[in-house]
Amino acid sequence: MKDKEQYSIGVDLGGTNIKIGLVSKDGKIVKKDKVPTNAGSGPESVVSQIKLSIHNILRKNDKKIKGIGIGSPGTVTLKGGVVEYPPNLPGWEKVRLGDIISKEFELDTYVENDANAAAIGEMIFGNGKKLNSFIMVTLGTGVGGGIVFKRKLFRGEHGSAGEIGHMTIDYSAGKCNCGSFGCVETFLGNHYIINSVRKKLPENMHSSIWKLIDNNFERLSPRVVQQAAEEGDSFAKQVINDLGFYLGCCLASTADLLDISTFIIGGGVAGFGKPLFHAVEKAVETRVLRSIQERVKILPAKLRNDAGIKGASALVYYKLGDI
Amino acid sequence: MKDKEQYSIGVDLGGTNIKIGLVSKDGKIVKKDKVPTNAGSGPESVVSQIKLSIHNILRKNDKKIKGIGIGSPGTVTLKGGVVEYPPNLPGWEKVRLGDIISKEFELDTYVENDANAAAIGEMIFGNGKKLNSFIMVTLGTGVGGGIVFKRKLFRGEHGSAGEIGHMTIDYSAGKCNCGSFGCVETFLGNHYIINSVRKKLPENMHSSIWKLIDNNFERLSPRVVQQAAEEGDSFAKQVINDLGFYLGCCLASTADLLDISTFIIGGGVAGFGKPLFHAVEKAVETRVLRSIQERVKILPAKLRNDAGIKGASALVYYKLGDI
Repeated sequence: MKDKEQYSIGVDLGGTNIKIGLVSKDGKIVKKDKVPTNAGSGPESVVSQIKLSIHNILRKNDKKIKGIGIGSPGTVTLKGGVVEYPPNLPGWEKVRLGDIISKEFELDTYVENDANAAAIGEMIFGNGKKLNSFIMVTLGTGVGGGIVFKRKLFRGEHGSAGEIGHMTIDYSAGKCNCGSFGCVETFLGNHYIINSVRKKLPENMHSSIWKLIDNNFERLSPRVVQQAAEEGDSFAKQVINDLGFYLGCCLASTADLLDISTFIIGGGVAGFGKPLFHAVEKAVETRVLRSIQERVKILPAKLRNDAGIKGASALVYYKLGDI
Repeated sequence: MKDKEQYSIGVDLGGTNIKIGLVSKDGKIVKKDKVPTNAGSGPESVVSQIKLSIHNILRKNDKKIKGIGIGSPGTVTLKGGVVEYPPNLPGWEKVRLGDIISKEFELDTYVENDANAAAIGEMIFGNGKKLNSFIMVTLGTGVGGGIVFKRKLFRGEHGSAGEIGHMTIDYSAGKCNCGSFGCVETFLGNHYIINSVRKKLPENMHSSIWKLIDNNFERLSPRVVQQAAEEGDSFAKQVINDLGFYLGCCLASTADLLDISTFIIGGGVAGFGKPLFHAVEKAVETRVLRSIQERVKILPAKLRNDAGIKGASALVYYKLGDI
């Protein structure tokens, strides 16, 4: 029987590594691999590495493959699977990645922006399985997002919708990498969290963070803050509470604008867990319009490890309407 | 020939008056009327007044009527034209307004939230005629909005999408009527503008606003600020510039989230004209993601007087897919 099951290949194209997996229809990775992206060597080299990774996965394969899904940084045009100007991949302008891969392997290939792929992953395999509409939020180096409305991805006019991280929550606050000011990413991006903790630590000499980092600021990380909070450190708890508040401000705006009131939150920073989710929930409920208040749901992402591979592989089932 | 032309009835249900018109397919009002809403007397009385207004318009009518469109405050469920908890209409819970009116007049009746109706009005009769996607923003007592994506209204999960006025641009700023803080409406709503000018006037003793209001704060209005700005008053010009900046912050967030980059701005406060639009444009272009920057368009609404009636009447053509 097992031979009749269908599988898809998920490719998670990152700035450092290409992660790839063979994924079953119920979202289990049965084989996986990782190759360096070689981003510095330019687009042709990256495309070669993607091909290499797929060849690796297909070697000695006896499974029936339904298609290939690729999650990529940058803006993606669905027709041709064209990836435009992906950040962290220098030298790229426009690459017809979908067409190239599809031709090479004679398999249907679907390319999507990585945050959108994460949303599709949660919809097909994760906590969005039974949801009609939700907003996916990924907390990591940056703050990304994807909008699912009535089981369809809302991509906007040119496929770049969902950039929740660049919504302003304080127009006069710090400058963001994007050029604007006070984007929610300037409050919740990994580096911003670390910088902000670093600044405030000297006023919190009793915080257990000092011991955890052995007085060495280089060792500061969201993980350390979490550990301190779990040990009961009140400064660390306050940091997490503040982060939840900032994110909640942004999600309340989003819910008011879109009348979509369920959020799925994933990515490394989401590892702060319940205290973070509780603070987000409180802020959204306090700030959202009354007509939406009772419907607000803040859920953790289900896909954690290999969420990138699984999200990319889910594109195949999503695109075929075979969910 | 004229008898063969088709018309629709547009009903603009407000807290004080019901405005109604007979509107031609190219958006011209050929007959109009106004009756008091009698909001204080409760929903049954309001429904009677709506019926009365329609009877008035239909008296001695020899035109072919395609249907009735009603723009109403509150959240509207399309099936049955159910209006829920409209602000400014005390005592309403849920009223099946569409069904009631359709039965009374034996005409297809379409009910929609008033901000959404304004968006449809611009799409069918106004500056959105040739646009695929745009965001309608109405500046008045409050700040409202409607999202048009691929010539369809984006209504969200329960029909209340588009509440752009309650997006936060400064999470720690003033309290909004909605219960949240720093909503863009707390910077641009009519009353907020007046209060803010009132507070700042004593520091601007040379402003020509003093003369225009004859030193009487009761006479302050957006119109007075506009007049002063037109006379070259630098304080008034700064006020308008600031308003444009605040709105621009919010629209940049909206464009990043939705990847929709055209905005049509209407309502009384939009009367500040070019200086306002220029400031909005500048702020959006400075703050929006680079991939969207070059596409940003800020347009004035075309429908001004009777925009409410025209927007409501446009619902008939929109719903019938007859655009």
